[in-house]
Amino acid sequence: MGLLIKNGTIISAVDEFVGDILVEDEKIKEVGVNLSEEGHQVVDAAGKYVFPGGVDEHVHMGPFNSYSFETSHAAVVGGTTTIVDFAPQFKGMGLIESKDKHNQERAEGVSTADYSFHSMVMDTDDKLIAEIPHMAENGLAAVKFFMAYNGTAYHADDELTFKAMQVARDHGITVMLHCENGELIIELEKQLAKEGKTLPINWSYSRPPLVEDEATRRGIYLAELADCPAFIVHVTTEGAMNHIKEAQERGLSVYGETCTHYLILDESYLNTPDIEGAKFVCAPALRPKPHQEALWKAVRENDLIAVSSDHAAYIGGFAAKSQFKFPNIPPGAPGMQDRLAMLWSQGVEKGRISRQRFVELAATNPAKLAGLYPQKGVISPGADADIVIFDPEYRGIITHKDSYEGTDYSTFEGFERIGIADKVYLRGKLMAERGKLVGEKGNGQYIKAKPYGLAYQNFKKEAKEEVQKEVKELVHQ
Amino acid sequence: MGLLIKNGTIISAVDEFVGDILVEDEKIKEVGVNLSEEGHQVVDAAGKYVFPGGVDEHVHMGPFNSYSFETSHAAVVGGTTTIVDFAPQFKGMGLIESKDKHNQERAEGVSTADYSFHSMVMDTDDKLIAEIPHMAENGLAAVKFFMAYNGTAYHADDELTFKAMQVARDHGITVMLHCENGELIIELEKQLAKEGKTLPINWSYSRPPLVEDEATRRGIYLAELADCPAFIVHVTTEGAMNHIKEAQERGLSVYGETCTHYLILDESYLNTPDIEGAKFVCAPALRPKPHQEALWKAVRENDLIAVSSDHAAYIGGFAAKSQFKFPNIPPGAPGMQDRLAMLWSQGVEKGRISRQRFVELAATNPAKLAGLYPQKGVISPGADADIVIFDPEYRGIITHKDSYEGTDYSTFEGFERIGIADKVYLRGKLMAERGKLVGEKGNGQYIKAKPYGLAYQNFKKEAKEEVQKEVKELVHQ
Amino acid sequence: MGLLIKNGTIISAVDEFVGDILVEDEKIKEVGVNLSEEGHQVVDAAGKYVFPGGVDEHVHMGPFNSYSFETSHAAVVGGTTTIVDFAPQFKGMGLIESKDKHNQERAEGVSTADYSFHSMVMDTDDKLIAEIPHMAENGLAAVKFFMAYNGTAYHADDELTFKAMQVARDHGITVMLHCENGELIIELEKQLAKEGKTLPINWSYSRPPLVEDEATRRGIYLAELADCPAFIVHVTTEGAMNHIKEAQERGLSVYGETCTHYLILDESYLNTPDIEGAKFVCAPALRPKPHQEALWKAVRENDLIAVSSDHAAYIGGFAAKSQFKFPNIPPGAPGMQDRLAMLWSQGVEKGRISRQRFVELAATNPAKLAGLYPQKGVISPGADADIVIFDPEYRGIITHKDSYEGTDYSTFEGFERIGIADKVYLRGKLMAERGKLVGEKGNGQYIKAKPYGLAYQNFKKEAKEEVQKEVKELVHQ
Amino acid sequence: MGLLIKNGTIISAVDEFVGDILVEDEKIKEVGVNLSEEGHQVVDAAGKYVFPGGVDEHVHMGPFNSYSFETSHAAVVGGTTTIVDFAPQFKGMGLIESKDKHNQERAEGVSTADYSFHSMVMDTDDKLIAEIPHMAENGLAAVKFFMAYNGTAYHADDELTFKAMQVARDHGITVMLHCENGELIIELEKQLAKEGKTLPINWSYSRPPLVEDEATRRGIYLAELADCPAFIVHVTTEGAMNHIKEAQERGLSVYGETCTHYLILDESYLNTPDIEGAKFVCAPALRPKPHQEALWKAVRENDLIAVSSDHAAYIGGFAAKSQFKFPNIPPGAPGMQDRLAMLWSQGVEKGRISRQRFVELAATNPAKLAGLYPQKGVISPGADADIVIFDPEYRGIITHKDSYEGTDYSTFEGFERIGIADKVYLRGKLMAERGKLVGEKGNGQYIKAKPYGLAYQNFKKEAKEEVQKEVKELVHQ
Repeated sequence: MGLLIKNGTIISAVDEFVGDILVEDEKIKEVGVNLSEEGHQVVDAAGKYVFPGGVDEHVHMGPFNSYSFETSHAAVVGGTTTIVDFAPQFKGMGLIESKDKHNQERAEGVSTADYSFHSMVMDTDDKLIAEIPHMAENGLAAVKFFMAYNGTAYHADDELTFKAMQVARDHGITVMLHCENGELIIELEKQLAKEGKTLPINWSYSRPPLVEDEATRRGIYLAELADCPAFIVHVTTEGAMNHIKEAQERGLSVYGETCTHYLILDESYLNTPDIEGAKFVCAPALRPKPHQEALWKAVRENDLIAVSSDHAAYIGGFAAKSQFKFPNIPPGAPGMQDRLAMLWSQGVEKGRISRQRFVELAATNPAKLAGLYPQKGVISPGADADIVIFDPEYRGIITHKDSYEGTDYSTFEGFERIGIADKVYLRGKLMAERGKLVGEKGNGQYIKAKPYGLAYQNFKKEAKEEVQKEVKELVHQ
Repeated sequence: MGLLIKNGTIISAVDEFVGDILVEDEKIKEVGVNLSEEGHQVVDAAGKYVFPGGVDEHVHMGPFNSYSFETSHAAVVGGTTTIVDFAPQFKGMGLIESKDKHNQERAEGVSTADYSFHSMVMDTDDKLIAEIPHMAENGLAAVKFFMAYNGTAYHADDELTFKAMQVARDHGITVMLHCENGELIIELEKQLAKEGKTLPINWSYSRPPLVEDEATRRGIYLAELADCPAFIVHVTTEGAMNHIKEAQERGLSVYGETCTHYLILDESYLNTPDIEGAKFVCAPALRPKPHQEALWKAVRENDLIAVSSDHAAYIGGFAAKSQFKFPNIPPGAPGMQDRLAMLWSQGVEKGRISRQRFVELAATNPAKLAGLYPQKGVISPGADADIVIFDPEYRGIITHKDSYEGTDYSTFEGFERIGIADKVYLRGKLMAERGKLVGEKGNGQYIKAKPYGLAYQNFKKEAKEEVQKEVKELVHQ
Repeated sequence: MGLLIKNGTIISAVDEFVGDILVEDEKIKEVGVNLSEEGHQVVDAAGKYVFPGGVDEHVHMGPFNSYSFETSHAAVVGGTTTIVDFAPQFKGMGLIESKDKHNQERAEGVSTADYSFHSMVMDTDDKLIAEIPHMAENGLAAVKFFMAYNGTAYHADDELTFKAMQVARDHGITVMLHCENGELIIELEKQLAKEGKTLPINWSYSRPPLVEDEATRRGIYLAELADCPAFIVHVTTEGAMNHIKEAQERGLSVYGETCTHYLILDESYLNTPDIEGAKFVCAPALRPKPHQEALWKAVRENDLIAVSSDHAAYIGGFAAKSQFKFPNIPPGAPGMQDRLAMLWSQGVEKGRISRQRFVELAATNPAKLAGLYPQKGVISPGADADIVIFDPEYRGIITHKDSYEGTDYSTFEGFERIGIADKVYLRGKLMAERGKLVGEKGNGQYIKAKPYGLAYQNFKKEAKEEVQKEVKELVHQ
Repeated sequence: MGLLIKNGTIISAVDEFVGDILVEDEKIKEVGVNLSEEGHQVVDAAGKYVFPGGVDEHVHMGPFNSYSFETSHAAVVGGTTTIVDFAPQFKGMGLIESKDKHNQERAEGVSTADYSFHSMVMDTDDKLIAEIPHMAENGLAAVKFFMAYNGTAYHADDELTFKAMQVARDHGITVMLHCENGELIIELEKQLAKEGKTLPINWSYSRPPLVEDEATRRGIYLAELADCPAFIVHVTTEGAMNHIKEAQERGLSVYGETCTHYLILDESYLNTPDIEGAKFVCAPALRPKPHQEALWKAVRENDLIAVSSDHAAYIGGFAAKSQFKFPNIPPGAPGMQDRLAMLWSQGVEKGRISRQRFVELAATNPAKLAGLYPQKGVISPGADADIVIFDPEYRGIITHKDSYEGTDYSTFEGFERIGIADKVYLRGKLMAERGKLVGEKGNGQYIKAKPYGLAYQNFKKEAKEEVQKEVKELVHQ
């Protein structure tokens, strides 16, 4: 007996039509019109939209003193059925071993959402370069380097990043870059501290847009010199975005994402007379208003290819965060639960993006980027039956009272939400209904990432054909 | 009993996966994996690609002394199941009446392919502007203006085109522009004639790229001033393409197509010591080599959105054409049969475009542009069952001996062809197999075009929602 | 005995320094420091600026019902010692004969300013093209074509302009283009007239910026195709200016000027509830505010190379003009007297251009462009002693009561003027003092224009060397 | 009694005319036509060009094991009467004290050319930032930072450079940047060394164009963030040049120079099968051919504003250099003697730049940039009488046998030279004739640099007016 979702308006990244979806054995089996109901559990989706479960390819489920996978059902409740966490490199440990340890300690048997990992360089251990060729066979397909945070173990200098790129390109590993000029941030922080500045807004003043623009441009140069694709995480400025766009026009495989809060919140949220603004301290900083429309244009026109949450929920929430002052306020904001709601309400409903683009930004492209496609991110025969039935008529307000994120505030508190995930299915199981968890916790599966993700789509014909073959085989299984 | 196409690799404009398609009552009913064969005629497509029947949105089935719809099966044999012809305006007659007359005289009961019409202004009759609001209800959704051919009835000056645009925009009618500066062409022809030049290459010298670049830029200005979308037909130069791209970046709804021959053949084909080059006389002229790669880049990156044939097969073929000398050689070249073969062989097989993009350029976008989507151009439950099963292993050579186009030469004579349409279905009926017509002639249906086509996709939110509603209703039927 | 101007701050197009100028026999003989006063008439210019007499390369001293050369002393009083008038082509008469007739009837023995002529095509007589090679030997070095005014004898179509360019380029004749799309203007005028619009602001609505942008781009295409330099007169829009700039960056010899009123007055001057706005009716129309700062940027950064007045003083002035209604208001505004005052007050004093750039825009470049350099436009040994001693301390208000232009209003009425031409010398003779004519009328000399002017500076090495030789010889004389 | 140079064709940065120059008391007193010869020593310059003595604003007269000011007459013989050396910062010593020590040890009483200094940061001593406000009063107006050479005392990181810029801008100090990404160079050197590469060409492979492009872009970001003008030294790539150009178009005060060898020599000079290429090892490296034409275009169109020699003549010459292998070959090439000869022969004579632009690039702009204008770099009453009489008819070949540079090879060995400095005057004294030194050695004067040089020309109106006042006063003296 299958699950038959009938008469919904099925939205894909390019299309929409009224039809039926038949699910069997955790997979989508058929898409059609007037499919026979016989022997199936029928769910009527008439008047509702049906789209693939969201994929959030940029979340932090720890470290950084964040709540971990035990809160992953927050994503599911919001319609995001798969999350990709950054597995931190432990001191003196290689990327692969670090990922396994991180998985065992935090995710396995705990996660409610399906999940995967990118690596995150946090030590400049020699093993790093040597391990890249073995990442793929260990289910890792992307590795992030921090251009910022100079003077800490997190910082990767140009030399290291460049060397890593020279290797990564031959193995289909996606190099992710956090682009901020750390030296300039440190100097500006010093200057502001010297002037006795302690309010949250100084977080922004010490990280002006040019600091991101510069590092983004530099990151692109590294990629060009190494002849390697690159993916710029959390792009927040018009300048950085234009550098990415220009690189693409010159034929480089350079792509970028932005995050929900950079699209919706501007710098003024940081600019409170008290510590309130600490809720919105994250890196890069929130930007002045003109950047938001530029980012919306970019996501609409495919100059940025994905919208993630960069979810990082500080343990203790604002109560804990508010104990600090600039420049010591711990960065990071929660967001994985409300990502789809905000992208729909502020994007689709305001005419900034189409419903097709919504699906592409929130599910299809993240899955492709992270090496999870076509198992995730698409409603297509053979794919995992991760399905959202979305009721566009719902009207409500975002409040942390509805939040499963573990923290004591919501980043989008008070924003109107239009539409709600009426039903969320993860591999065919009903997990959430209208903002409430109804499924069982802890059954999330670990999905191994495949190399040659979206960042490689126009890079190296040979490599591409290989992975296309792989993709075919996967679907055949 | 339905037709069940099993285990093909189904290609859409964004995706591909191995699956099955069930056809009933001329429509696609289901797409799935392992669909039950019971009660259905099963066609095994394993190892083959399956994609929607091509839509050629720019063909001339007469006038201009061209072969007419009695040769439309040439398109079908090549995998193109729908053609859109330009209905000429007859002297002193309105666009609508002209279309009806043209349909009755040439297409109805004769066409083998399904077909639709754009209007083509060939008289500056006063009724023109008055009729635009009534085009849609008469199945017309696009109208073409010639910026060239000054001094003939075909020529539309800037004033007329601008006036028409002011009306068309309110009715969702797509204004198509043939962009060449006619005054300059006339002067250059005069100068060359005065020098006694008669060879075919002078066709090119009298129509240099700048002549197209200029008119294209001017056409965009007209559209901007009238606040009307525009579609530039047969873009052949890097300059024209860049103008279109730049217009889009400024937020204008300006789009363009190119044609198979401009992608593949360069100016040297015209440059023969004898009349041979007359085969390739068409307007605009073939271009020097660098333009071809620029056009491939444009179709790859969506700066041009469709590839048509601009099919125009002169009655009597080269035998007749070769009786003329420059500047009197009648323009036009056949191409609707080999369009898909050439686009696949030179595009997909050479790594210039993906298979997804092939489908988008050859079927999906043309259908959207011409107002035929989602009835045509897509494999999706509810759409017409126009399906090509494509064998990518075939190797052959293009020759006019295989041609059904009626003429005595093939534009792409001698080019290698990789892959062949193994089976072509039109509304579920098998029409062609491996280059041979096997279906019955004359059963092509006339499809009325719907307004607010692809050129309006980012234009006028209100209008868009209206047509989206329409689209939904269509699929529901 | 010479005239010795002492201790002024001498401004050139690149430099300024305190020094002395010795004038003998109508020419500048020496420039130095502490030149001996012995035997010379000494004029103390300490604390004042000294710069070359202005050259206004775009004035209309008739026809168009304008006041003629009998008012040319208005220019001189304002510091402009040389004016270049457009000699109209008379019906059925060639350019050369027309110029001679125009000179005899209007200028000879009447003009107070030194003067020269450009030709202005106003008949499409066949002789036009044939005469271009003979223009230079007859003292004509530039010819203007109107892209607007379709349907009148003034209009030159693309074909004619292109043909003329093909010849002009071989003879160093500067092709000037009035760039407006006449067809669109006519249509918009018709539409506004049909709606019963009669106020002056409709002049602007019927000639929106895009109408100029389009024709400018087209003019550049004509020049590129003909491989001929071009000079775009009265550039008023940011779009047109950008086209010129982009053409230069691609290596084309395309240049442009703007006029005083386009820099200073915006569209709101036309927008009066009564006929008052008729004073400011001129072609192209005044533009919305953002265009003014764009034009200032362009003149500052050399994207536009000269500032002329486009002086055209309607006989009878506003009293006569106000008898008409849109679309019949006769265009043209007076401006040659106040050009330098406004450019200094609004440009130099507001920090928008340097004093060097002021001299370059108002004197040096216009002289080079019109083929009068280095006889005019520069303070350099050997040049004509056309010298302005300028008192920067003066403060006053522009009023038509101070005007010598013959009309009953001033275009810049009420604007503050900072600085005044304390003394104006024409070929060493004192002609004006502090806004009053003190010299004799009617002694202006006709200066024959030399070909290969500024528009040819980067065009055709051979041609350039020829004219450089010529220039040397002239200075040697 | 004065020196009267008669009838030469006097070239300035904007103009040229036949005239006379009268020199008295080391200064230019008059410029005129037919000046009275009475009581003067007359030099006939008929048929020759006369231009200001060259200013070479980028030479290294030590350290780096280079020949020092005792070879400065090499510049004078070549027509360059003023050189600006980089005063190295000594370990633990401030910029000002370092400059004084350097002057005393190497230049004073030894230099034949007039000379001035820029500072060069070679220690990150804390005094650096504190001293910037006092540079100007000590005759220093520019300071250079090395973005390359990481891991040595020379390297200035982004933080230091940024801090210095924040101070420099308020004091009119020109920040010069050597733009190469040192980390990438080090890594590439390591990789090549590991592969056993030792030939000179590897110098180029370890410093590809992107390494300069990146650092240039970064340098511009630092300047933008600090709101400070910047001057990029030795620009060698099209990419770097485009970044500078684009910065200027956005209104930033960012300028650049290139050097003679980057205009004329391409990478192939490094690519010898033996150590021969070591002669051309310099930083940045010589570039592939396409960059040279791009640089010529840039100097022609003012996208780069000066051409220096970056003279650095290694003691012992090639005999000494050839003892090393990559990556240890000491960089630097001689060039101050042949700079004008090469710029004239390859620039003016090949039609790439005008004679006016030659003077601007070689004398006027360097003097303005280095704060020496209008005392140096111009033929104008009041300026130092540094004058070159140039014979354009001379034809010869560059050879180190004619060199006074102290080394055993010439960078431009074997190149044709067209024209020669017939006579070179330094402050009115004849120093050289036709390539031979005829004046006395050791009388060069130290010229203190004034702040707010050319890089500040469009920056901070108030500051500008101040320096303009200063300039006026200087000329009055």
